[in-house]
Amino acid sequence: MTDIRELQTPALLVDRSVFDSNLQLMSQAHPGHRLRPHVKAHKTTELARRQAALGHDTFTCATIREVEGMAAAGLGNDLLLANEVLDMRRLGQLVESGARVTVAVDSDVIVEAAVAGGVREVVVDVNVGLPRCGCAPEDAGRLADLARSRGLAVRGVMGYEGHAMVITDLDERRKVVEECMTKLLTAHADVGGDIVSAGGTGTYTVNTWANEIQAGSYALMDTAYAALPDLPFGHALSVLGTVISTTAPTAGIPGWAVADVGLKSLGMDHGNPTIPGGAVWFCSDEHTTWQPEEFSDVSIGDRVRVLPAHVDPTVALHEQMYVVDGDTVVDEWAVDLRGW
Amino acid sequence: MTDIRELQTPALLVDRSVFDSNLQLMSQAHPGHRLRPHVKAHKTTELARRQAALGHDTFTCATIREVEGMAAAGLGNDLLLANEVLDMRRLGQLVESGARVTVAVDSDVIVEAAVAGGVREVVVDVNVGLPRCGCAPEDAGRLADLARSRGLAVRGVMGYEGHAMVITDLDERRKVVEECMTKLLTAHADVGGDIVSAGGTGTYTVNTWANEIQAGSYALMDTAYAALPDLPFGHALSVLGTVISTTAPTAGIPGWAVADVGLKSLGMDHGNPTIPGGAVWFCSDEHTTWQPEEFSDVSIGDRVRVLPAHVDPTVALHEQMYVVDGDTVVDEWAVDLRGW
Repeated sequence: MTDIRELQTPALLVDRSVFDSNLQLMSQAHPGHRLRPHVKAHKTTELARRQAALGHDTFTCATIREVEGMAAAGLGNDLLLANEVLDMRRLGQLVESGARVTVAVDSDVIVEAAVAGGVREVVVDVNVGLPRCGCAPEDAGRLADLARSRGLAVRGVMGYEGHAMVITDLDERRKVVEECMTKLLTAHADVGGDIVSAGGTGTYTVNTWANEIQAGSYALMDTAYAALPDLPFGHALSVLGTVISTTAPTAGIPGWAVADVGLKSLGMDHGNPTIPGGAVWFCSDEHTTWQPEEFSDVSIGDRVRVLPAHVDPTVALHEQMYVVDGDTVVDEWAVDLRGW
Repeated sequence: MTDIRELQTPALLVDRSVFDSNLQLMSQAHPGHRLRPHVKAHKTTELARRQAALGHDTFTCATIREVEGMAAAGLGNDLLLANEVLDMRRLGQLVESGARVTVAVDSDVIVEAAVAGGVREVVVDVNVGLPRCGCAPEDAGRLADLARSRGLAVRGVMGYEGHAMVITDLDERRKVVEECMTKLLTAHADVGGDIVSAGGTGTYTVNTWANEIQAGSYALMDTAYAALPDLPFGHALSVLGTVISTTAPTAGIPGWAVADVGLKSLGMDHGNPTIPGGAVWFCSDEHTTWQPEEFSDVSIGDRVRVLPAHVDPTVALHEQMYVVDGDTVVDEWAVDLRGW
């Protein structure tokens, strides 16, 4: 039994009871294959194993490395690479070795890449409103026909309504999701197949059109998603830091503290992290400077838990997660799906 | 000889001629020990070896891991950990094994940590205006006396004028640096020792008070520093991506393209990256969506060089850098100083 004070900082912490609760809540809302958890949000096969144990044993991936690592961990039942890639040879090798790998295709070039790489199953990726990947809904049927004519099995469609994820008002969010899913279902009518895959943590309650939801962030959570008042998930992830310096208040200037958690251990695209009981001023490469509510409560050497604004790029910066029960480390998981 | 088209993307590229030019320019401006290059900006011992070969064989580090890795690579001549750490046992072991390691101290607690960890040399870290680490200038002499009374050698002072780095107007930047360095020299008068260490890429020309400059970004550069009109350094670093999807213009909506470079391969705290010849719209975990000036110039499968806004957190996301001469890969360097 290790106490968190013995960990070298910065270190990723996963609060076991909050994490367990998050997984339970989602498995009740979307049991079995109605959820296809996205592993990009944690990049950790040991965490995926807990999702699979609750019945979520089909997964969404964003990179070839994630697909490879999941298959190597024995979690290769049904892996969807929800992203376009040009060189699929590594995926074809996984198919040869017995993993079930399905890839997203949104153009003739990607269909040919799947054939060339030895992948046998695809879904048609449809642009439902977020300007990123995905074919036009009216082109989906043609792409499916092309894929089938080239010997590929077409399992259905996917489309990510990413621009709806953090709309605060739930009714407005539902309305945008409905517009997106109307496009996806139109495409599905032309494409066929069993899969209508979409959604994320922000839309898992309101997306009633897709038959599987690609949520990932719900397991660990971040402060951006926590801004949605309707989400029941708690902050399971934090970055543990050590207070390395403090500057006492002087006339006109509040006191501040510095923790050894910075840009090299935090995903920053959603802005600054949060420190409960304080106001974060700014982050540097290896520092967060913040103003504690009560300066006298903070001393050099104290441990502090920093809540990242975006979980996905945060986990990509760490080699392991420490699972904690209170301040006791009860498990250690390798973040083993990093890289490409 | 590998062509960049054979690299898996995303991949860090270092343009050899621009990199060589950046190193030459800095070694002319600050020959020998007037520069103490900061390795946090590249985290790569093979790159540091090129700096040492040009006479810059004393280094600044931000983490214990950086100090350890530099010593292990035979670059442990004179390593300054310009940061406060509580547990210095790993540093003490390096000192035992023959590396020269000097650490920053800004409080009594950190002085005692140095003694306890077996470190023998320190500099006093002075707060010169950036609210982060560093003691008050008027407390520096007392801290130096304490350190000496505890058996430590005090080599001088350091103070980082980080808030001056990206002031666009050069005269204004010089003025802020002067205010900061006046504080540092006041502290130095009380502390003694040979070292007055400060500065960075943004202030290397105007900081005429420090006797060594801790610049790091100059070697690779990023778009944030490139906004300073007086810096002569070129963009040596880019993230190579592959165009994986394009959507043609339609009535009222411009066309866009998507590259496989996203939040997992870019430091985002300074904002979006730049793609020459296009306007970046947004980044997702594994994507950058951008609008090419000429849509017809971009095809699926094309390679594209994405310029990060901040070099330091970008390199921390990659396992290696590929050194290129045009489109030919001429060398590969491990980013071997990641982690803590």
